[in-house]
Amino acid sequence: MRRPDDAFHLAIPARDLDEAYDFYVTGLGCHLARRYDDRITLDFFGDQLVCHLAPEAVPVGDELAALRLYPRHFGVTFHDRADLDRLLRLVELRKLPVFAAARLRFEGLVEEHTTVVLRDPSANLLEFKHYHDPRMMY
Amino acid sequence: MRRPDDAFHLAIPARDLDEAYDFYVTGLGCHLARRYDDRITLDFFGDQLVCHLAPEAVPVGDELAALRLYPRHFGVTFHDRADLDRLLRLVELRKLPVFAAARLRFEGLVEEHTTVVLRDPSANLLEFKHYHDPRMMY
Amino acid sequence: MRRPDDAFHLAIPARDLDEAYDFYVTGLGCHLARRYDDRITLDFFGDQLVCHLAPEAVPVGDELAALRLYPRHFGVTFHDRADLDRLLRLVELRKLPVFAAARLRFEGLVEEHTTVVLRDPSANLLEFKHYHDPRMMY
Amino acid sequence: MRRPDDAFHLAIPARDLDEAYDFYVTGLGCHLARRYDDRITLDFFGDQLVCHLAPEAVPVGDELAALRLYPRHFGVTFHDRADLDRLLRLVELRKLPVFAAARLRFEGLVEEHTTVVLRDPSANLLEFKHYHDPRMMY
Amino acid sequence: MRRPDDAFHLAIPARDLDEAYDFYVTGLGCHLARRYDDRITLDFFGDQLVCHLAPEAVPVGDELAALRLYPRHFGVTFHDRADLDRLLRLVELRKLPVFAAARLRFEGLVEEHTTVVLRDPSANLLEFKHYHDPRMMY
Amino acid sequence: MRRPDDAFHLAIPARDLDEAYDFYVTGLGCHLARRYDDRITLDFFGDQLVCHLAPEAVPVGDELAALRLYPRHFGVTFHDRADLDRLLRLVELRKLPVFAAARLRFEGLVEEHTTVVLRDPSANLLEFKHYHDPRMMY
Amino acid sequence: MRRPDDAFHLAIPARDLDEAYDFYVTGLGCHLARRYDDRITLDFFGDQLVCHLAPEAVPVGDELAALRLYPRHFGVTFHDRADLDRLLRLVELRKLPVFAAARLRFEGLVEEHTTVVLRDPSANLLEFKHYHDPRMMY
Amino acid sequence: MRRPDDAFHLAIPARDLDEAYDFYVTGLGCHLARRYDDRITLDFFGDQLVCHLAPEAVPVGDELAALRLYPRHFGVTFHDRADLDRLLRLVELRKLPVFAAARLRFEGLVEEHTTVVLRDPSANLLEFKHYHDPRMMY
Repeated sequence: MRRPDDAFHLAIPARDLDEAYDFYVTGLGCHLARRYDDRITLDFFGDQLVCHLAPEAVPVGDELAALRLYPRHFGVTFHDRADLDRLLRLVELRKLPVFAAARLRFEGLVEEHTTVVLRDPSANLLEFKHYHDPRMMY
Repeated sequence: MRRPDDAFHLAIPARDLDEAYDFYVTGLGCHLARRYDDRITLDFFGDQLVCHLAPEAVPVGDELAALRLYPRHFGVTFHDRADLDRLLRLVELRKLPVFAAARLRFEGLVEEHTTVVLRDPSANLLEFKHYHDPRMMY
Repeated sequence: MRRPDDAFHLAIPARDLDEAYDFYVTGLGCHLARRYDDRITLDFFGDQLVCHLAPEAVPVGDELAALRLYPRHFGVTFHDRADLDRLLRLVELRKLPVFAAARLRFEGLVEEHTTVVLRDPSANLLEFKHYHDPRMMY
Repeated sequence: MRRPDDAFHLAIPARDLDEAYDFYVTGLGCHLARRYDDRITLDFFGDQLVCHLAPEAVPVGDELAALRLYPRHFGVTFHDRADLDRLLRLVELRKLPVFAAARLRFEGLVEEHTTVVLRDPSANLLEFKHYHDPRMMY
Repeated sequence: MRRPDDAFHLAIPARDLDEAYDFYVTGLGCHLARRYDDRITLDFFGDQLVCHLAPEAVPVGDELAALRLYPRHFGVTFHDRADLDRLLRLVELRKLPVFAAARLRFEGLVEEHTTVVLRDPSANLLEFKHYHDPRMMY
Repeated sequence: MRRPDDAFHLAIPARDLDEAYDFYVTGLGCHLARRYDDRITLDFFGDQLVCHLAPEAVPVGDELAALRLYPRHFGVTFHDRADLDRLLRLVELRKLPVFAAARLRFEGLVEEHTTVVLRDPSANLLEFKHYHDPRMMY
Repeated sequence: MRRPDDAFHLAIPARDLDEAYDFYVTGLGCHLARRYDDRITLDFFGDQLVCHLAPEAVPVGDELAALRLYPRHFGVTFHDRADLDRLLRLVELRKLPVFAAARLRFEGLVEEHTTVVLRDPSANLLEFKHYHDPRMMY
Repeated sequence: MRRPDDAFHLAIPARDLDEAYDFYVTGLGCHLARRYDDRITLDFFGDQLVCHLAPEAVPVGDELAALRLYPRHFGVTFHDRADLDRLLRLVELRKLPVFAAARLRFEGLVEEHTTVVLRDPSANLLEFKHYHDPRMMY
């Protein structure tokens, strides 16, 4: 268990801040904490996500085409299955861009989990997961 | 406040898994959850960090020389100052590689906070912070 | 003690939504949850505040001049004195409009508390309090 | 999540304090914290509600007839559906005055929620809600 | 540690319900949950206290003169010393009837604690305590 | 909600301490904290119960025959129905002395609850309850 | 309830540290906190387990053949049945060495519980349990 | 952090159950949960300790003389220094048998902690610790 009073924080590049706002706030339902000229800071499922305006760091062309889940992505592992289900419903209703559809991984093993991967407008990949056995969340 | 039962998870590239283990477990005091041939998964201050073996994604040469804190880094914002102080003591005692020494930012503003930046062996940047006003953690 | 999972919600009139955003998000440090044409919804110190576009319900002229703290205001009673102090510092640093400066009320009684009253751009009054004896918070 | 130790507080006008007591304590099951000549303070679902004796601020006649839910109302958003169901049962058994019967709003959207609106004897409107997706509570 | 969701409940005799209300609500700062013809129910420091109208069960004359702390009394043991200090201040400011003034018991032993005993208008005895070592609270 | 760190404490008379131990520890499953010549102190469902050796205060004969639930009894109100069911099972399996069998009170009202009353060897009455609507626990 | 911030710690002998690592980390899913030449320290279901290299203290031959559950073993009592079920599934999927298969003990008594016993490579016995009535966990 | 609802449990040998009761309940302030002919079960700082009557498993003579802290002992690591200080005071006031006096280990390292070791009447060793940096508790 993590401490509720602390926060993980992650900084990622954004091609355009309005676009990031649309994806994270209007789409994913995150809360906007602050907006500056060069960044927006978000309450992302209780942790802090900062989108920095850095179009030069956003992949395009071949680099974008080669985008894979590894080695770089982030997201939330939900303890309760219902929370993942609600996210999947939100993704469907709001037609958020899916990079890899929801599926079961490691079926029949202790590490078994359901996972879905989204892609934000700056090609950052977000993975949301739920493990059958919450001890496998680490 | 975030939910203690859920976990943030972040996947980052590693040049070498033993090196990553030395930095995160032996150095930073994170716990090893699982080790596979291509990755190690860690309990990183209560959230999940996965180091994927991906030497091709680790910056070298000019790219490494140009490494800056923005737009990509991650870390923990501690609610209690004592937790940051303990981390600073650990960094000093165990001589962990510091990218930017501890300093006060936005002094005299509501956003005032103390920050230190570390660099892991694969040039991932880790920022640890403490805000005078915890409402600014987002 | 209230339940952390539930939320109090309050709907108030706003003369202008940008103005409300500036006061609550940029000024007071609340988080923007959603923005519609006719309202914004906010994470206000953990509870929900909704500013509805309703300029006709905002007092002007004599009505504004006669504005008093009673019978209608809202706010937060902090359990810890440090939280009120941080709010007072934010009010000063960001020069938020104060309706009644911080003062001690009922000094020497069990109900003794420190209180400050702010006024938002639509003449809604916000009171923030701290009681010496937290049993008096109700 | 809000902090359980703090309290939201809301002050509203009351035409008559005995009437307010009957509605909130005998009817709605709130707890009376203190009674003064000019106000009663209540533990309202864990937050503080203060009814100030202010008959002049209570709408009558045309103003009362024109009473609408927007822009001014307050209430509780329950995390658990069972809590709203128990409130609906209480409203029915104790025949509390309903302003707008329980219904589903935004059906089929992520913001989908069940809502019921009560009217206290001083024409203050109380809305109790439950969202299918608790992330929409803000 | 006890479970916050459950409640201890205690029923005691009262000579007169208004008198009981004055002592417990106006004096001690408890909250009134419900009032019936034959009883009042109170939120007593988070647990439930019920005062039943039963003048015949209230000691008078010799029986009252012989009243001692043992074997029958009730109260709260505070984990934090500050909570007892606030109660002592309330007792002094509101001049509540003290049966045995605050004193240290078992000084120099592990069981060392500060205790004060109040007497309600129906001769029920209330003891409030704080132990130096919270493991001795049982 | 009550604070988990504090404890309610109740002192009651006992005719015989071994007898009290048998009822509360061996029977009801409470934990023995301390035993002195003149009392035993118990962890009673998370709160403190002290049985003082005071046979003269224990009703006998006509007084015992006239024993009624009001105005003096104590017990626990469980938030979860399953906890009451487990207690009822324990009472049956261990054949604890029942003063009033489990039954539903105030059926069809908001105050509806299930209650059972036990009698300890010194004729102290213990009531265990569960309310359909937990807001009625006070 | 125990305090989440404290930790139980247990030191046990290990014949070989790699073997202990395989059983506890790779098998049982515990997290490795630290590795020294003479011990490994583990986050064992939230408490601390230390395996000390001490082959001379590990039973062999007749002593091993005579190994019984009493008087020396350790483990976790789960509050929720689902947690035990997940552990049983892990034991089966990962083929961990079972000393005594899962079974119900004290059936029909209040102390009824399900129990399974594992044996680590150094002949330490681990018992995992779930009680029908969580009050019997002590 | 460990889960407050679960419990660690440890079974150890005892030469004599009354002796064990005296040490753990009367001395160390643990609570007695149950007593059988062949064991006592204790609430040991929130976890379960079971003392099994097994005099044959208790070291005597040379084996006792050779007793060392490694590889077998158990105890509690306190998050708060004040809790260890209170235990040290209890040990002194009640003259519990100390195996190794309180001292600082690993001074000047991140693993720095204060430790004291007690010996129960059956030669089981109990270590109580406090780390300067709570991340080192594992």
